Amino acid sequence: MACDFGIQCLLLSTCPACLLFCHVFQESLLSSSSGYSNYRGILNWCVVMLVLSNARLFLENIIKYGILVDPIQVVSLFLKDPYSWPAACLIIVSNVFILAALYTERRLAVVSLHISPDNTFSFAHMTQISCQVQAILLCMCVCVSVGGVISLGVYTVLFLKLYSYQDTNRWCREIRQAKAKKMTRSFSCPSVAQSNGSAAHTHVSYPGNLTHRDMYYFVFAPTLCYQLNFPRSPRIRKRFLMRRLLEMLFLMQLLVGLIQQWMVPTIQNSMKPFQEMDFSRMVERLLKLAVPNHLIWLIFFYWFFHSSLNFVAEMLQFGDREFYRDWWNSETVTYFWANWNIPVHKWCLRHFYKPMLRNGVNKFLAQTAVFLASAFFHEYLVSVPLKMFRLWAFMGMMAQVPLAWFVGRFLNGNYGNAAMWISLIIGQPIAVLMYVHDYYIIHHVNTT
Amino acid sequence: MACDFGIQCLLLSTCPACLLFCHVFQESLLSSSSGYSNYRGILNWCVVMLVLSNARLFLENIIKYGILVDPIQVVSLFLKDPYSWPAACLIIVSNVFILAALYTERRLAVVSLHISPDNTFSFAHMTQISCQVQAILLCMCVCVSVGGVISLGVYTVLFLKLYSYQDTNRWCREIRQAKAKKMTRSFSCPSVAQSNGSAAHTHVSYPGNLTHRDMYYFVFAPTLCYQLNFPRSPRIRKRFLMRRLLEMLFLMQLLVGLIQQWMVPTIQNSMKPFQEMDFSRMVERLLKLAVPNHLIWLIFFYWFFHSSLNFVAEMLQFGDREFYRDWWNSETVTYFWANWNIPVHKWCLRHFYKPMLRNGVNKFLAQTAVFLASAFFHEYLVSVPLKMFRLWAFMGMMAQVPLAWFVGRFLNGNYGNAAMWISLIIGQPIAVLMYVHDYYIIHHVNTT
Repeated sequence: MACDFGIQCLLLSTCPACLLFCHVFQESLLSSSSGYSNYRGILNWCVVMLVLSNARLFLENIIKYGILVDPIQVVSLFLKDPYSWPAACLIIVSNVFILAALYTERRLAVVSLHISPDNTFSFAHMTQISCQVQAILLCMCVCVSVGGVISLGVYTVLFLKLYSYQDTNRWCREIRQAKAKKMTRSFSCPSVAQSNGSAAHTHVSYPGNLTHRDMYYFVFAPTLCYQLNFPRSPRIRKRFLMRRLLEMLFLMQLLVGLIQQWMVPTIQNSMKPFQEMDFSRMVERLLKLAVPNHLIWLIFFYWFFHSSLNFVAEMLQFGDREFYRDWWNSETVTYFWANWNIPVHKWCLRHFYKPMLRNGVNKFLAQTAVFLASAFFHEYLVSVPLKMFRLWAFMGMMAQVPLAWFVGRFLNGNYGNAAMWISLIIGQPIAVLMYVHDYYIIHHVNTT
Repeated sequence: MACDFGIQCLLLSTCPACLLFCHVFQESLLSSSSGYSNYRGILNWCVVMLVLSNARLFLENIIKYGILVDPIQVVSLFLKDPYSWPAACLIIVSNVFILAALYTERRLAVVSLHISPDNTFSFAHMTQISCQVQAILLCMCVCVSVGGVISLGVYTVLFLKLYSYQDTNRWCREIRQAKAKKMTRSFSCPSVAQSNGSAAHTHVSYPGNLTHRDMYYFVFAPTLCYQLNFPRSPRIRKRFLMRRLLEMLFLMQLLVGLIQQWMVPTIQNSMKPFQEMDFSRMVERLLKLAVPNHLIWLIFFYWFFHSSLNFVAEMLQFGDREFYRDWWNSETVTYFWANWNIPVHKWCLRHFYKPMLRNGVNKFLAQTAVFLASAFFHEYLVSVPLKMFRLWAFMGMMAQVPLAWFVGRFLNGNYGNAAMWISLIIGQPIAVLMYVHDYYIIHHVNTT
């Protein structure tokens, strides 16, 4: 505005002429007609509110229960009876299966030069699998709570690894035979063209991989899928290794502390409303449990899939660090399940889903079968240590199929993402409470 | 990868040759070296967690206290003694001040043609201000809780409006005199060049604005700053008006409900730890109160600054709807205070800060003086209805000056934004608890 009150005024706009008009025609920012959409500050608001709410819950918990964290208790769980460690023995025995798998493959490599691999497949596999199932049954009878879960986990991982080992070696034999049949065309499969971080490791092809060194590298490598020449990282980064190790130790302590201080009292307090079937209190308890349960799951996710697997991978110079993808952005349930646990997802895809497709099963049926297998493993890993078959975990996993259909059909974008989070935050504590409730009923109500 | 197992395989990649290699050299997404930064899903996670946490608090509250919402109680606060409404009488009396201001200005418009406006200013202003202060003192003696707050609010707003009215008219006289002195140059001030939504309203210049119609339009308009020709919207949008009205009614109910159901029991429960000075419980109570207090403040903000002021503006076809700016994104405390309440900010800038700058006061001092005035008004609007002078609100406002310096100096970007939110979420309930505590001590402890 032109102004007659001098230079001083033009800078500060303090003269009467400049002050006279202070209103212009404009809409409020929150009116839809203003076209404003910068709500960057809202994210900070959410974070601050979450931190403050949880700080309060934490303080309330400390006031109510005092400090319950007790690292000695955890150690004592492992060392309960130091002269008979069934779990440790079982883990040592697992070497038998590893070596059996290796020697079977060595034998098959020779035999299959003469006979068709299709016959040998079923025989070798069946022997292996039946042995492992027997070991698992043994494990179920012997196991004590924590050691039992660990040995069961080890056996399950080993089962998946050896299955993959046998499958992959069988494919190599198939390729060798196909090659032998039509020698005219050269096969590109065991080529050096694959991306390999280091040139120092020599390239091996089929029968050459059947060594103890290669077998044990695969057993310890953070993957469930066997491959002839794993991509390798050029060197062990000391700082990276140290950071992952510190994360592992710290988060381990945090997890144990949160479980002792927050989960256990909340679960104990939830028993009464669940026995009395007081519905509104049950929902309140469920929501109260949801927060620590979800936090523990998130910390566990980071601890296992980022810190621990990266630590092992760095130690072994294992190159493929894709242990998870961006599941936090997933807008469908299927995307979440396909991306939060890449080692298992890769195994399912490679050794379960794709072979099914190859045998002419349609996609939806194959997907459901994968969920079914996954549901079985979830149930099995929970039921066996608790010695309680209730199918809650199984049903929780199977409920993902209709949920995936619903979310994919009716919700998309941020609504789909929110639905994924809700199912994750609410679904888990429901299953946890179901098992704890049943466990409590069996062990405490009947005895008193 | 080239593959010899046919077209079928190229589509599904289910042949042994395609399945053989499944690992590539890559980093985990959360490793800093991966360069990944898409955490869009985290915002949804925050929202879901907040909704679920608060749903639990709400359910817990209902279980603990039952339903406390009682609209009749609110109505009874207003109608306590229907035959003597001191607050309503005071509001009717305020017309006297409005008309006095108008007639004073009319007289001054004539007188100032002959004498200098500087002398008339102080006399007219002083008379007006002293009368208003007397009325406010009367108001303080008479007022009953809710009616008292409302009449006090009305008088405060009216005081600011009439101050602006007098200032603006004085500027007009100054301009008229400056024009008379140097007729050689034409003044651009009362020009039609300003942005005006409608061409239907005729343009008025200085003495022509001193009418009853113009005065009352200003009194009811949602602004504290007088201007000769307000920007006007072309028509009353019926749907916009209805939506704002429904928002007003609904949010009003919600506010009353939240206060009765959530704030009152929480405050009552906070009294015991505050009397016993149990520090950890005091912090816990403070954080518990922070959530409903902050929600109520946010709802109040939307209800008042968006719904109510827009409703009034739409009714009066008032064009300038900037009642708030994007304070939620503010990264400094100063930005927050300058943007959350635009009518008051505009008034302070136009009638307090800029005149001070014009008189040679430095910027920091002027800013502090504005905060001081604001602190005074906050204290005054709280203390008078409670009949309790404790200076907590005053101190809370004055604490913004060092806070603003600290945040501006050490925090920026999202950290500054988070600091703003924390001071907002935590600062308010501290002041609320202080007042309630003192009120409780005076009225309950001494009598029992």
